[in-house]
Amino acid sequence: MSTKQKFGAGIWHFATYVDRYATDGYGPPRSLIEMIDLAGQVNDLTVVDINYPFSDPTLTLDEVEAALKRNKLSVIGITPEIYNRQFAKGAFTNPDPGVRKLANELINKAADVVRRFGASYVKLWPGQDGWDYPFQVDHQELWKASVDGVGQLASENPDLKFVIEYKPREPRVHMSYDGVARTLLGIEKIGLPNVGILLDFGHALYGGESPADAAQLAIDYGRLFGMDVNDNFRSWDDDLIAGSVHPIELFEFFYTLRKNNWEGVWQLDQFPFRENAVAAANSAIDFLKQVERGLDKLDFEAMRAAQKKHDAVTALKLAQEALYSSH
Amino acid sequence: MSTKQKFGAGIWHFATYVDRYATDGYGPPRSLIEMIDLAGQVNDLTVVDINYPFSDPTLTLDEVEAALKRNKLSVIGITPEIYNRQFAKGAFTNPDPGVRKLANELINKAADVVRRFGASYVKLWPGQDGWDYPFQVDHQELWKASVDGVGQLASENPDLKFVIEYKPREPRVHMSYDGVARTLLGIEKIGLPNVGILLDFGHALYGGESPADAAQLAIDYGRLFGMDVNDNFRSWDDDLIAGSVHPIELFEFFYTLRKNNWEGVWQLDQFPFRENAVAAANSAIDFLKQVERGLDKLDFEAMRAAQKKHDAVTALKLAQEALYSSH
Amino acid sequence: MSTKQKFGAGIWHFATYVDRYATDGYGPPRSLIEMIDLAGQVNDLTVVDINYPFSDPTLTLDEVEAALKRNKLSVIGITPEIYNRQFAKGAFTNPDPGVRKLANELINKAADVVRRFGASYVKLWPGQDGWDYPFQVDHQELWKASVDGVGQLASENPDLKFVIEYKPREPRVHMSYDGVARTLLGIEKIGLPNVGILLDFGHALYGGESPADAAQLAIDYGRLFGMDVNDNFRSWDDDLIAGSVHPIELFEFFYTLRKNNWEGVWQLDQFPFRENAVAAANSAIDFLKQVERGLDKLDFEAMRAAQKKHDAVTALKLAQEALYSSH
Amino acid sequence: MSTKQKFGAGIWHFATYVDRYATDGYGPPRSLIEMIDLAGQVNDLTVVDINYPFSDPTLTLDEVEAALKRNKLSVIGITPEIYNRQFAKGAFTNPDPGVRKLANELINKAADVVRRFGASYVKLWPGQDGWDYPFQVDHQELWKASVDGVGQLASENPDLKFVIEYKPREPRVHMSYDGVARTLLGIEKIGLPNVGILLDFGHALYGGESPADAAQLAIDYGRLFGMDVNDNFRSWDDDLIAGSVHPIELFEFFYTLRKNNWEGVWQLDQFPFRENAVAAANSAIDFLKQVERGLDKLDFEAMRAAQKKHDAVTALKLAQEALYSSH
Repeated sequence: MSTKQKFGAGIWHFATYVDRYATDGYGPPRSLIEMIDLAGQVNDLTVVDINYPFSDPTLTLDEVEAALKRNKLSVIGITPEIYNRQFAKGAFTNPDPGVRKLANELINKAADVVRRFGASYVKLWPGQDGWDYPFQVDHQELWKASVDGVGQLASENPDLKFVIEYKPREPRVHMSYDGVARTLLGIEKIGLPNVGILLDFGHALYGGESPADAAQLAIDYGRLFGMDVNDNFRSWDDDLIAGSVHPIELFEFFYTLRKNNWEGVWQLDQFPFRENAVAAANSAIDFLKQVERGLDKLDFEAMRAAQKKHDAVTALKLAQEALYSSH
Repeated sequence: MSTKQKFGAGIWHFATYVDRYATDGYGPPRSLIEMIDLAGQVNDLTVVDINYPFSDPTLTLDEVEAALKRNKLSVIGITPEIYNRQFAKGAFTNPDPGVRKLANELINKAADVVRRFGASYVKLWPGQDGWDYPFQVDHQELWKASVDGVGQLASENPDLKFVIEYKPREPRVHMSYDGVARTLLGIEKIGLPNVGILLDFGHALYGGESPADAAQLAIDYGRLFGMDVNDNFRSWDDDLIAGSVHPIELFEFFYTLRKNNWEGVWQLDQFPFRENAVAAANSAIDFLKQVERGLDKLDFEAMRAAQKKHDAVTALKLAQEALYSSH
Repeated sequence: MSTKQKFGAGIWHFATYVDRYATDGYGPPRSLIEMIDLAGQVNDLTVVDINYPFSDPTLTLDEVEAALKRNKLSVIGITPEIYNRQFAKGAFTNPDPGVRKLANELINKAADVVRRFGASYVKLWPGQDGWDYPFQVDHQELWKASVDGVGQLASENPDLKFVIEYKPREPRVHMSYDGVARTLLGIEKIGLPNVGILLDFGHALYGGESPADAAQLAIDYGRLFGMDVNDNFRSWDDDLIAGSVHPIELFEFFYTLRKNNWEGVWQLDQFPFRENAVAAANSAIDFLKQVERGLDKLDFEAMRAAQKKHDAVTALKLAQEALYSSH
Repeated sequence: MSTKQKFGAGIWHFATYVDRYATDGYGPPRSLIEMIDLAGQVNDLTVVDINYPFSDPTLTLDEVEAALKRNKLSVIGITPEIYNRQFAKGAFTNPDPGVRKLANELINKAADVVRRFGASYVKLWPGQDGWDYPFQVDHQELWKASVDGVGQLASENPDLKFVIEYKPREPRVHMSYDGVARTLLGIEKIGLPNVGILLDFGHALYGGESPADAAQLAIDYGRLFGMDVNDNFRSWDDDLIAGSVHPIELFEFFYTLRKNNWEGVWQLDQFPFRENAVAAANSAIDFLKQVERGLDKLDFEAMRAAQKKHDAVTALKLAQEALYSSH
C-alpha cells in the first residue's frame, strides 16, 4: 500500500538556459526568486534542490526562505556550482591545487546552507572532473583526486550527507564519476557512512545501464540517498520530460524502489529549453502519479514468479497491464 | 603531386564558449577583432569563416576587413546566426511565419556580407530546425519548410552559393538536415545549382557515417562545396583537435578528396573549450600537413587494386605506411 | 474509423537461431513446415514473409502451400537469402562478378516464387553489402553496384515489386543501404516505379532516425511498400518484442501511417532467441491492437493543432491519453 | 628499455564463424588442429587461449599438445564454453539450478585442462549471463548469482587464477559483468586473491570507457590478470584488426601498462570473418610492434609533466611523435 508520494525538482528546471550556440539564452534570465515562484505553481511539487552560490550575490538566505515559504516548498539539497569557469578543468581534480582548495571551500559553504535550510544533503555533481583527450591525464592520479576530494568533505562534515550524481559525460567529454559501479567503488574506498549516490534515471539510461539495475546495486550497498528522473534518447543527457520516451523502464525503476521499500522524494531533473517550465513539470508529475497507481495495482508476487524464471513475456504483460490501466 | 594546401578555420575556433553549466563561460568574452588577431597567429592559416551579425553591433565591415588584412586572412564563408534565442524553435521551420521571415532577411543580409568580402558561400547551419519529442511535429511539414527555406534563398541569390552543414543533433535533439543522404535529397528537391553541402568530418563520424563515403556521395552529386574537420568519440560533436582520435579515417577522408581531384580549403571546426586556441589549431594543422604528405606518398594504384578486391588488410597496410612514414 | 487490421510476421520469427557464440543454436533446428505450423498458432496472424531457398532442398512449393493453407496463412513477400556464406563479401557489391551474377539469378528465382504464391514483393535485405574497415572499398563503385544490382532486377521483373529493407549494419559493419534517405537516393537514381522501401521500425530507431519521420519521408516519395516492427535499445538490432521498450515512438509511427491513409500489413520482425516464439508474437500483436484502438481514440485534429505549434507537452498528453486508455 | 614482447591470440581467431544470418558459416568449419596450425604461421605468435570442450569430442589433450608443440605455441588460458545452447539463459545466473551446476562442473573440468597445459588461468566470459528485457530479472538475485558463481569456482580452485572478461553486451542484450568497475565490485565482494580481470581493449572502447583508464583502475586494485586487443567503431564488439581504427587510444592503453610495469602477453581477440586469419593477425602484430617501439621512444617524463597540467595538446604531440616515428 503506497503512501502519498512527495515530488520535487531541481530549481534549474525553472531557469532559462544558454548553450554554446544560443549564447543569448533560450529566454530572458530569471532570478532565483522567480524560479521559486514558478516552482510553486506546479501541482504537488513540495521540494526543491537549489544551486549555490546564488547568481545574484545580494540575495539573502532569508529572502530565499521567504519565497520558499510562500510557495510551500522545502529544500531537499543544495548543489554547489563546481562546474563553472573557475572549475573548467575540474573541481576535485583540477591540476591547480589552489582551485581544488576553492572547490572545497565553496562546498563547505554550501554545507552550511544545507544546515540553514534543514535540507537532506549536499549534492556533488562534478561535471568538469574528468578528461577530454587520450593521453590528457594520469588516470591513477585523476581518480585518486576524485575520491579524495569527496572523502575530505565527508570527513569535515560528519553531520551531513553528501550525494554524488554520476554521469557519463558533459560538459567534460568523460566524467570521472561516470556510472553507478565506478561511483560505488569510490564510495567504498572513502569508507564513510555519509557519502551516497543521487541516481539520475537519464544518466543511467544514456550510460548504457538499466536504471533499475543501477538502483538495486546502489541500494544493495546502502548508498541510494536520492534520485531524480527525466528522459532522453539514450545517447545524451537530453533532460526531457519523464515518461515521454521510456515509460516502461521508468516503471521498472520505480518498481525496484518500491520493492526495496526505498522511501524518498521523486524528483525531476528536466531542462525544458523550449517548453513552458510549469507545464513540463506537470506533465512529468502526471505520469509519475500514473506510475504510482501502477505500482499499487501491480501483482508483485506474480512479477517475482515471472522474474524467477526470467520469463520476459509474462513480466512485460504484468507491467503493461498495471501501468496502462492506471492512466 | 600536391600543390600547397590552403588551411582555414571557423573564427569561433578563437572564441571563448559558454554551455548550459558553465554559464559564465570558459573564459572572458573575446571580440571578433581579438579572434581574428589570434587566428593570425596560427601557422599557415589563411582563410576564415565568420559569424554574422557581429556580437558587437557597432563593429563595421571596414574594421573587420582591416583586421583580416593585417593578419593576411581572407573570408571563405559567412555563417548567419540562425540558431540563437530568436530562432530557438527553428529558423526555416519555426512555427511562427514571422520568425521564418526574419531568418530569411538575416540570411539575405549575410549574403551581402559574402559579396562584400568576396567570400565563397553563405553557410547554413540550421541547428534549431528539427524536433525534441515524439509527436512534437508534423514531419512532412517540417521537412518541407526545411527544403523551401533554403530553396527560396538560393532563388533570391542566384549569384551566390549556399552550403548546408548537416549534423545529427545539437542543440535540437534531432536536426532536420541530419545526414549527407537526407541533405542531398533536399538539395535535389530544390533543384538549383547554387546549393551544396559543407561536410563536417565530425558530424559524419558521429552520425554513423563513414566520412569518406559521405564525401564521395556528395561529390557524385556535384554538391561538395566545402568541408571542415575536427574529431570526437562518435557519440557527440566534441569538436576536438583533428587527428587526435581518428587519424586513419581522417586520412581516408582526404584520400577520397584527392582521388576525386576535389580542391578546396581544408578547414577546422574545433571548439577548444579548455585549450589554448592557437596551440589547438597548430596541432591540427601539423597533422593535416602529415596527411598531405601521406597522400603524396600513398600508392594510389596499389590502393585501387586492393579496394577492387575489398582487401582490407592490404589497404590498411598501404594507408598506415603512407601516413605514419610522413610524420 | 479503422478497419480490421491484418497482422503478419517474417517466418524466421518461428525459427531457432545461431550466433557467433552459441554455434550449436538456441534450440534444435526447425523445418519451414514446423515454423509455419507455429505461425498458425498465433492469434490473428494471417500473413508471412518466407526465406528462399528453403533450407531443406527437397521441400516443394506445393508442400509449403499446403502447410500455409491449413494454417490460414498467405504470403506477403519472399526474402532471398543473399547474405549467407556465398555472399559474405556482398551480393550486389561482391568483388567477384560471378557472385554478383549468382545473386541476380537467385533473386530472379525468388521472384518466381513471389508469382507462384501471389505475394506482394521480393524483399531485398543486402546485409553483406557494405564494408568493415576504413579504406576497404571504393565508395563510389560500391554504391553504384548497390544501386545497379537492384535496378537490374526491377527492369527484369517489371510486373513485380522489390522492396529494400535498409539497416545501419549487421552482419556487415556498415551496410550500403543504411538508412531511409540513402535508400531513397538510390531508388530515385534507379527511377523505376517497382522499387520501394520496407521500413523496419527497429532499424530506423537504432540508426538514429525517428521511425515516424522515416515513414513520412518514404511515403512522400511514394515508396513505402511495406513495414515491420520490433524493438531494441537503440544501439543494435535486438529484434525484441514490439512495444516492450519504445511504446510511444511505436504509436507515433502508426499514427503517421494512419494519417497518410497508408494501408498494409502490420508485420513483426522479431528474433525470440530465448522466448517462446508464439508467446512473443502474441505479446506484440496484443500491443499492436492497443495501438490500433489508440489511433481510433486519438483526437487527430487536436494533435494537428498541437504539432502546428510544435507544442510537445500537449502532443504528448494527447498521445498518452489515447494509447494508455486503450489498454 | 623494453624486453622482447610476447604475443598471443585466442585460438578462435583462426576459426570460421557463423552468425544469425550466415547460418552456413563464413567458411567451412575448421578443426582445432587446423586452427593451431594456422596460428603457427603467424609471425611471433607464441601463446594461445583455447576453448573447452573441443568441438570434436574425440580429440585428445595429447593430440592438441602435439599440435601446439610442433607450432611452438604454449597455452595461456582455457576458455570454457559457457555461452552455447545449454547456457542460453545464463551459466552462473541460469534460472535452472541444474544448469548452474553444469556450468560449475564444466568450468572445473576446464580448470583441469589449465593445469594439464600449465596455463595461467581459466577465462570466464559469461556472455549469456544478464538480461534482454525490462522487468525480465530480479537484478539483486542476478548479480548475486553472478558473483557467487565465480566465487565458488575460485574457492574450489585456490591454486588457479580465474579471469573475468567483461563486456557490455552480446549475445545477451545486457551482460551482468558489463564493465571494469562493476567487475571490480564483484571481485572485491568475492574477496579472493585468485580472481581478476582480462581486459579486452574493444570491450572497454565500446562500453564508453577509456581503455587506458580501465586498465589503470584494474591495476590499482591488483586485478589486471590479462588483456587482449582488437578494434571496433565504439558501438559493437566488431573484433577488427588492432590499430585499424583507434591507434592513439591503443597506444595510450599500452602506455598505461608500461608505466605500471605490467608485464604479460599482448593478446589478440579478433574475428576475421571475411579476412585471411593469418594476414589479419600479422597486420595487428606489426602494429603492436610499432606500439612497442613507440613506447621505447616516448619521453615518459615529458608525458608525465604534460599530464600533470592536463595539457592535452602537448601530450598528444608527444604521443604522435613517438608512435608515428616508430613505423
